[in-house]
Amino acid sequence: MKIITSGEFFTEKKNTTSTQINEKQLDNIVLDIITQVRKDKDTALFRYTEHFDNVKLDSLLVSESEFKEAREKVDTSFIEAIQEAKQNIRTFHEAQKEQSWFMEKENGIVLGQKVTPLEKVGVYIPGGKAAYPSSILMDVIPAQIAGVEKIVITTPPQQNGKISPYVLVAAEEVGVTSIYKVGGAQAIAALAYGTESIEKVDKIVGPGNAFVARAKKWVYGDVAIDMIAGPSEICVVADESAPVNYVAADLLSQAEHDESANAICVTTNKELAEEIKVEIEKQLATLERKAIAEKSIEQNGRIIVANNEDDAFKVVNEIAPEHLQLMIQNPTEKVNKVKHAGAIFLGNYSPEPLGDYFAGPNHTLPTSGTARFASPLGVYDFVKKSSIIHYSQEALLEATNKITKIANVEGFTAHANSITIRKDYPNA
Amino acid sequence: MKIITSGEFFTEKKNTTSTQINEKQLDNIVLDIITQVRKDKDTALFRYTEHFDNVKLDSLLVSESEFKEAREKVDTSFIEAIQEAKQNIRTFHEAQKEQSWFMEKENGIVLGQKVTPLEKVGVYIPGGKAAYPSSILMDVIPAQIAGVEKIVITTPPQQNGKISPYVLVAAEEVGVTSIYKVGGAQAIAALAYGTESIEKVDKIVGPGNAFVARAKKWVYGDVAIDMIAGPSEICVVADESAPVNYVAADLLSQAEHDESANAICVTTNKELAEEIKVEIEKQLATLERKAIAEKSIEQNGRIIVANNEDDAFKVVNEIAPEHLQLMIQNPTEKVNKVKHAGAIFLGNYSPEPLGDYFAGPNHTLPTSGTARFASPLGVYDFVKKSSIIHYSQEALLEATNKITKIANVEGFTAHANSITIRKDYPNA
Repeated sequence: MKIITSGEFFTEKKNTTSTQINEKQLDNIVLDIITQVRKDKDTALFRYTEHFDNVKLDSLLVSESEFKEAREKVDTSFIEAIQEAKQNIRTFHEAQKEQSWFMEKENGIVLGQKVTPLEKVGVYIPGGKAAYPSSILMDVIPAQIAGVEKIVITTPPQQNGKISPYVLVAAEEVGVTSIYKVGGAQAIAALAYGTESIEKVDKIVGPGNAFVARAKKWVYGDVAIDMIAGPSEICVVADESAPVNYVAADLLSQAEHDESANAICVTTNKELAEEIKVEIEKQLATLERKAIAEKSIEQNGRIIVANNEDDAFKVVNEIAPEHLQLMIQNPTEKVNKVKHAGAIFLGNYSPEPLGDYFAGPNHTLPTSGTARFASPLGVYDFVKKSSIIHYSQEALLEATNKITKIANVEGFTAHANSITIRKDYPNA
Repeated sequence: MKIITSGEFFTEKKNTTSTQINEKQLDNIVLDIITQVRKDKDTALFRYTEHFDNVKLDSLLVSESEFKEAREKVDTSFIEAIQEAKQNIRTFHEAQKEQSWFMEKENGIVLGQKVTPLEKVGVYIPGGKAAYPSSILMDVIPAQIAGVEKIVITTPPQQNGKISPYVLVAAEEVGVTSIYKVGGAQAIAALAYGTESIEKVDKIVGPGNAFVARAKKWVYGDVAIDMIAGPSEICVVADESAPVNYVAADLLSQAEHDESANAICVTTNKELAEEIKVEIEKQLATLERKAIAEKSIEQNGRIIVANNEDDAFKVVNEIAPEHLQLMIQNPTEKVNKVKHAGAIFLGNYSPEPLGDYFAGPNHTLPTSGTARFASPLGVYDFVKKSSIIHYSQEALLEATNKITKIANVEGFTAHANSITIRKDYPNA
């Protein structure tokens, strides 16, 4: 793990202007898949599943007996963990619920904002060798609280044609049983445009690999998406009050995700930086996913030594991290120095995995610095608003000259006419 | 204007599956522009402005003297209209403001949602021959209410190298004086990646032509955008209580926008449909922008005769119109039948241009059926949220087994380790 100064960090940052624009090869593949799925529908899905997942399926939909089978395979402690996590996620997200509102003004004017749930949502869950039951909870529960009627899940099958029992049980625990065995760009295309088996949805959410992310970018506009997710990041701000072994463990928890994950520590204490570096090497040796974590730490890991606390938060805000841990004294008082972060974990007993699995706030967070402008997935992602405008005759007539003035300036005389006709021909 | 049955409408709709995916030629042009602007920065902007707008500029930024000059050119009635519209827009959008919140749970657990304004926003305003001061108000005011510190505007210059005085005065009235004379995909690239003159922003909002819309799709992900806007639509639901001349005027107000605009009327009364058709022909003849409106009505105009009220609202929800006018008896009682619409105008004295210019709710609305999943531009577009998580030692230790259970199921053992290390090595 490299130790660098904040000055070096800012220079490094300035010289790396990342972009997702230039992906011609990926675009060609993804656009071809989307085109094929729009044309051949289910047939294309079966074809791609055979090609990419090495499974020949007869049916995409997970059957009742598969759910039953899954139930028998998972242990009670998993179900109990899921149930408590579910409750925590519900409690937090209930607080995000928005209500429609109206305001009355003079002369019988009523304005308002109507909040309506989306009708149909598709949740993409990565699969194959991995199983992410936690993503099911995090993506489905906010949609349910918003009032979404129809939620479907797509996830690539394992080589035996099955879906992980943990995923199936988690889905059943939150009441979703429409699960389709299809992954990749082909799943995104199916959700965006519909096939015989899979109905077109209004919004697609959930994490995925590079093909999934790119397919989401392409269908965006025809359908809503949550975000285009990039590699995961953690940034730990630590001072002398932070136990070195906790800090190292937390940085490594992020590094094990994949080689492109970013684990960054910011401190004003150079000795602490050295200690953390040593502890990371020590803990690394013991990890199951050592190969991945090691590469991630080597390539992207940084311990940044800042000049002072303000400088440290300048570094944090430049990173705009997905996950930010404040392992410093009086962390709550420092929260307002954070301008950009997906989730902020306070103190020594709030490690990131607590948020990934259990505490309640969503684990679907803006990555790659997009916390500058994006939010965690929430109930607000599953509703849309409609404005309400009611003017009385009196109110409209009073405003006539002002409205037509602006319309005429913009050259929209038929707009002006729709106002003046009501003045010239008042309807008794 | 064609009169069709609701059955014919649904068939027509089923057979037109529009998409924004296949735009290879446009993509090539737009990607080239973005690449050039990233490489040559201001130089590229000057070059494209000369090429596309036929203007050789020395400086992109509008000068103080240009603002002064503009002030002298506009009349008091325009300023008064803008000021009242501004007040109305402020009043409505103030109600959208969100506050940070926190919830305390047992054992010292604190969870919360921190709301933070975006730092830098770029507003694109179409220009050249047209001038849209109303878009300045609608795009800038919600950002200001959200608390955005830095707002800049880009708009293409007229052939004389100037910006419309109405646009400059409207901008000055809302306190924005950073206006850059650049339009098209090159303006979007400049806002997304920065040049010597124009600072990179966090989010780009505002309407634009096909190049602007496509450039926004491409930079999306590197920067946030409001939406990819398509042609404008109006849908008027009318019964016998709706004055035929008002309905016709309102449909035409939308049709004058451009040839691809959609003006649609839905009614259960066949005779009313015939009367509206005749009235549209009559009013069309008198319009200044007759050529455009005529083509729009001819190509996309529809009067749809529904079987009954429920059928009429089924048609409305299938369209998911940008603008919906309910010119029917007791319109307020019928609002809940509307599932998808950008803005809903109630009664005979709430024509769409009232909302475009004056009433207060935003005129930047989801087009092309995207009201199924998208909202009007609002204060919520200019903030982002960060989750807050604080667990006490006691609370974390209590949850240890459940968290590690899920982490282990997902194969993330370093995640589990970051939890267990706090149990195995409690920090006194």
